Amino acid sequence: MNKKIINVAIVGVTGYGGLELLRLLHNHPTVHVVSIHNTSTDSEEISISYPHLKSMYKITPTPFDPVHIMQSADLVFFATSSGVSKDLAQPFIESNFPVIDLSGDFRLNATDYKTWYKKAPATQALLDQANYSLADFYQNDRHYIANPGCYATATLLALAPLAQQQLLDQENIIIDAKSGLSGAGKSLNLSSHFVNVNENFSMYKPNQHQHIPEITQQLKQWQPDVNHIQFTTSLLPINRGIFVSAYVKLNKQVSADTLQDIFETTYQDKPFIRIMPKDHLPNIKQVVGTNFADIGLTYNPDTKYLTIVSVIDNMIKGAAGQAIQNMNHLFNLDETTGLQLIAQYA
Amino acid sequence: MNKKIINVAIVGVTGYGGLELLRLLHNHPTVHVVSIHNTSTDSEEISISYPHLKSMYKITPTPFDPVHIMQSADLVFFATSSGVSKDLAQPFIESNFPVIDLSGDFRLNATDYKTWYKKAPATQALLDQANYSLADFYQNDRHYIANPGCYATATLLALAPLAQQQLLDQENIIIDAKSGLSGAGKSLNLSSHFVNVNENFSMYKPNQHQHIPEITQQLKQWQPDVNHIQFTTSLLPINRGIFVSAYVKLNKQVSADTLQDIFETTYQDKPFIRIMPKDHLPNIKQVVGTNFADIGLTYNPDTKYLTIVSVIDNMIKGAAGQAIQNMNHLFNLDETTGLQLIAQYA
Amino acid sequence: MNKKIINVAIVGVTGYGGLELLRLLHNHPTVHVVSIHNTSTDSEEISISYPHLKSMYKITPTPFDPVHIMQSADLVFFATSSGVSKDLAQPFIESNFPVIDLSGDFRLNATDYKTWYKKAPATQALLDQANYSLADFYQNDRHYIANPGCYATATLLALAPLAQQQLLDQENIIIDAKSGLSGAGKSLNLSSHFVNVNENFSMYKPNQHQHIPEITQQLKQWQPDVNHIQFTTSLLPINRGIFVSAYVKLNKQVSADTLQDIFETTYQDKPFIRIMPKDHLPNIKQVVGTNFADIGLTYNPDTKYLTIVSVIDNMIKGAAGQAIQNMNHLFNLDETTGLQLIAQYA
Amino acid sequence: MNKKIINVAIVGVTGYGGLELLRLLHNHPTVHVVSIHNTSTDSEEISISYPHLKSMYKITPTPFDPVHIMQSADLVFFATSSGVSKDLAQPFIESNFPVIDLSGDFRLNATDYKTWYKKAPATQALLDQANYSLADFYQNDRHYIANPGCYATATLLALAPLAQQQLLDQENIIIDAKSGLSGAGKSLNLSSHFVNVNENFSMYKPNQHQHIPEITQQLKQWQPDVNHIQFTTSLLPINRGIFVSAYVKLNKQVSADTLQDIFETTYQDKPFIRIMPKDHLPNIKQVVGTNFADIGLTYNPDTKYLTIVSVIDNMIKGAAGQAIQNMNHLFNLDETTGLQLIAQYA
Repeated sequence: MNKKIINVAIVGVTGYGGLELLRLLHNHPTVHVVSIHNTSTDSEEISISYPHLKSMYKITPTPFDPVHIMQSADLVFFATSSGVSKDLAQPFIESNFPVIDLSGDFRLNATDYKTWYKKAPATQALLDQANYSLADFYQNDRHYIANPGCYATATLLALAPLAQQQLLDQENIIIDAKSGLSGAGKSLNLSSHFVNVNENFSMYKPNQHQHIPEITQQLKQWQPDVNHIQFTTSLLPINRGIFVSAYVKLNKQVSADTLQDIFETTYQDKPFIRIMPKDHLPNIKQVVGTNFADIGLTYNPDTKYLTIVSVIDNMIKGAAGQAIQNMNHLFNLDETTGLQLIAQYA
Repeated sequence: MNKKIINVAIVGVTGYGGLELLRLLHNHPTVHVVSIHNTSTDSEEISISYPHLKSMYKITPTPFDPVHIMQSADLVFFATSSGVSKDLAQPFIESNFPVIDLSGDFRLNATDYKTWYKKAPATQALLDQANYSLADFYQNDRHYIANPGCYATATLLALAPLAQQQLLDQENIIIDAKSGLSGAGKSLNLSSHFVNVNENFSMYKPNQHQHIPEITQQLKQWQPDVNHIQFTTSLLPINRGIFVSAYVKLNKQVSADTLQDIFETTYQDKPFIRIMPKDHLPNIKQVVGTNFADIGLTYNPDTKYLTIVSVIDNMIKGAAGQAIQNMNHLFNLDETTGLQLIAQYA
Repeated sequence: MNKKIINVAIVGVTGYGGLELLRLLHNHPTVHVVSIHNTSTDSEEISISYPHLKSMYKITPTPFDPVHIMQSADLVFFATSSGVSKDLAQPFIESNFPVIDLSGDFRLNATDYKTWYKKAPATQALLDQANYSLADFYQNDRHYIANPGCYATATLLALAPLAQQQLLDQENIIIDAKSGLSGAGKSLNLSSHFVNVNENFSMYKPNQHQHIPEITQQLKQWQPDVNHIQFTTSLLPINRGIFVSAYVKLNKQVSADTLQDIFETTYQDKPFIRIMPKDHLPNIKQVVGTNFADIGLTYNPDTKYLTIVSVIDNMIKGAAGQAIQNMNHLFNLDETTGLQLIAQYA
Repeated sequence: MNKKIINVAIVGVTGYGGLELLRLLHNHPTVHVVSIHNTSTDSEEISISYPHLKSMYKITPTPFDPVHIMQSADLVFFATSSGVSKDLAQPFIESNFPVIDLSGDFRLNATDYKTWYKKAPATQALLDQANYSLADFYQNDRHYIANPGCYATATLLALAPLAQQQLLDQENIIIDAKSGLSGAGKSLNLSSHFVNVNENFSMYKPNQHQHIPEITQQLKQWQPDVNHIQFTTSLLPINRGIFVSAYVKLNKQVSADTLQDIFETTYQDKPFIRIMPKDHLPNIKQVVGTNFADIGLTYNPDTKYLTIVSVIDNMIKGAAGQAIQNMNHLFNLDETTGLQLIAQYA
């Protein structure tokens, strides 16, 4: 293992993604957080506002200064809300400075971004310098990594084996995705008020979630005839975890055993993807707190639908953990470095 | 309104369904609970074991005695686990005595029961005396009412308008149903242990839930070419509520506005079914504590899938409330009697 | 029972207390809600913003107009936040028009209000026209009823039997009170964000909660030497319910059996107070959804501390239910009218 | 740091404590788990029954054999239920083999054990070979370490600074302790059923919890005049975490600032104890997932009561984490080795 210390800066440190980066990087053996930045004007030591960090970090947010960051750090993480990094990233891109962007700003082309995020996009020239990088299929050749969205990660990992084998019946890809509340971030609104979430379950943005184009764009690279997916998202009354139920038909007949084989083969060298035994489905708790994606399948011969369940921790595999995994790749470390985490059983 | 008092007996009173019947019947203006029975040998006053009933009920379970029940009561509710009423119901059926059975024992024909419940069924002769009765489409002509299952109720109400119009594309009826824990009953097992349920979400019995044949049997009556549905069930970490997400294709082109009209028209005279405005979807909390089923729809022109969301309280609309609604019909009361309940907002 | 219809107006109808009044009053046999009012400018039919009310209420908030309210209604409920009714109540008080005020504005004298609420109080002249009325000890002689706070209700009911017998050791009255989130109301802040509440427990306002003076003021009326209580409040990750653990020493030796007797005797004619058998303690669920306060006690001969547990539904017994109970008293109805509610067991 | 590998065996590996040891030890740099044992006859690879361990452990429980354990391991953890280790420990004690016992079997003298656990105790001779070791005050001189109970840990850490300064008024030590469900272990009973716990809060074993004698025994060592505490325990509807609210009077007048100083001084060199600023109280979430105990205090000059809040993760600081901390001490490692964990913020 490369023992050289990697100095990193984190922009947007007081959002959920930034705080999770701080937490996970604390146990990364070769990373040092040299500076943290947020978009507000907070400037007290971070453990004062975030007492869970007390005695673990003694660091104060400083104003965002790209030149200074490039002098003192080896990589910058953007853990900002959508619409922020597109305005801040240019100096890093122009300097070929390594960036891992957890936001959606560099995941789509300019047209799709405008359509789905309803905001002005970065210029296409800048976007062309970024690579969308699902860390388990890492094959990056650029310095700017657009880290995938949480729903997109869970969904793509569920469909990759079939898409890569050109097996999806593109008219019948139905995704019913559910997420814990941390996926919605820190913002205060009626839909994050405890009383509205607890003992409730609700679907939101049906057919309109901004992760849809990110998913179809990647699926298309694997299986070019896939144009659209039926995709809904719902809120689970839990803090963490994504549960994707995918119901798909195949474009030719494949036995259940062969399907199981295809999944096991696709992921046999991927340390973070665990395929359950045939007809066993994973639950959310077995991955919360980890960088794993656990996947199970069961085939219904009557309806010809294959049910695929894929579960991840939205804050780790779906955000900060995958970002670190991408960073490990970028710096030629073993991809599991700092990410060997086991879920709490109780 | 008929002011004559209806005397009822409840068998299986200490299960969740029986306790919910007690609770709801307390506010029914013309029902009196004359006797309660359970399958164990408990014989202390019910409020001793169930202190929430203190000062509301002063009644002690007595041994099950069909002759005595038929003498003292006008109707019996079976709120027993599956496999019980099939052995106890015969004297009532032979006497044409009114029964409302909340269990699954009289919902299916003998063959389907054996296949899906993996138990010996009642004789077909007895089964032929029972009527499966979705209370909102009540058209019963028998004394033995098989009250529908909770998942079946939410699913059938979501699909009825389309099936009745012969609009379902029978190859693409996908139901992703989720339920709170009370649906699984009182039994103690790993999957009902708090630590395993809380902060978790898991799918169980995919393609194998015993409500599947009940749903297809009813759908077929409406639209004969429907043979199977893709149906999965998951556990939500909440006490009550069912959320059905149905993704269906139609067998001909129908505009989104027309679909909305079809739902509104089908249910315009049904006091317990509330159709949300177009593209608005209901959440679980707006029906918990009530006998309502709230339904919303949204159409995706890209995938040609219609998403239908249907929510109910599994213990009320999915069990005890619907049983009382069926009882109201049977005794020619207004079907809403005793069931005018509003959900808690907070 | 008096069958004359009571017309009521509700001010502050879109807060939790107002919505709960609407819900409960729907089942009150002799109440009709003639008008609703809120402090914002909302003016659409209430079931549009609050779909849980659909088909149950068809009423639209109108501007607050005291003259019109006094013409069309027999009583007005203020379900407003603190600081509102003190400015709106004057015309009702001057007309001796019946008011039940769920807020804290008329519970304290002017000095205490200023100290604990940190707001300008109503004039002492107005305050003198109001009666603080714990509904289970109703002895009101004024038209303006200050309905007690939720914590105060649960605490006072736990201590009343001892205070009325002059038994409290005033130096050692320790109250550790916990409440579900609905007690904190609808406002959006970090402490009501789902992710911060769920899987958490936190104490807030130790020794500073505004219900403290309300409690000591009432205790003092029963036992004049009581000057202060040790009182802390914590947030439970649940929607509803208050659990008060009171640890008290007595100012003379009394046997555990006698203590149990004192509680049973004090409450023997109070339909909403249920005393558990000796050494049995109630839990929150047995009262949620009801107007009951359930109380249990257990004495520790080693430490000489008596533990008293008192549980209520903060939205019902602690707010809207008690308000209706007070209204029933004011209109000489049976106090249980419209409030015969049983808790959900599952 | 000592880089020599410590080989450990775990008895009772499939209980919550054992699984948590496995999880935490995976990230301990110098520990290797050589064998695992359980009391049932399970003998499949552990990740088959516990899929969250898949790809992290490849180990199968083997029959308990003390001779073999002493040959292959350097230390054994007992993570068994109470009543087990007292029968299994003798060969280890006789061989002076290092044991860390997470159960209650060796925490009390024989008489107290019999009284509070209602089971036959180990012989006093064996008990005399064990040391009760609160890891943050480690001063062990024996090979058999009785690891403290979860409630005892949180309570003792809250009271230690005062007891060590002889400041407690022994007649007024009131502890209201609350725990998440994992504290009750895996066993299936009504009180662990999801529906009974969720949206509920209940007190259990008031004045009877078996951690009481463990607490008084230790307090007495610090302040000999302490004979009893007023101690109740309640169940929080969360998976993890203990919240202790302690209300104490002091036996002489001490200013709030001095009290704060005493706490800060007592714990200044204890890496796992974090004292909050004066009048700031910690919440559960800031320690869940960590080995920290966070403590805050606030003094009430009216009542003369000091409120102390102490929070821990019952599975880590209250069980497996403290066991590892004790092991680190025993093997002269830095006590924080393998335990540098940060709580999840979201």
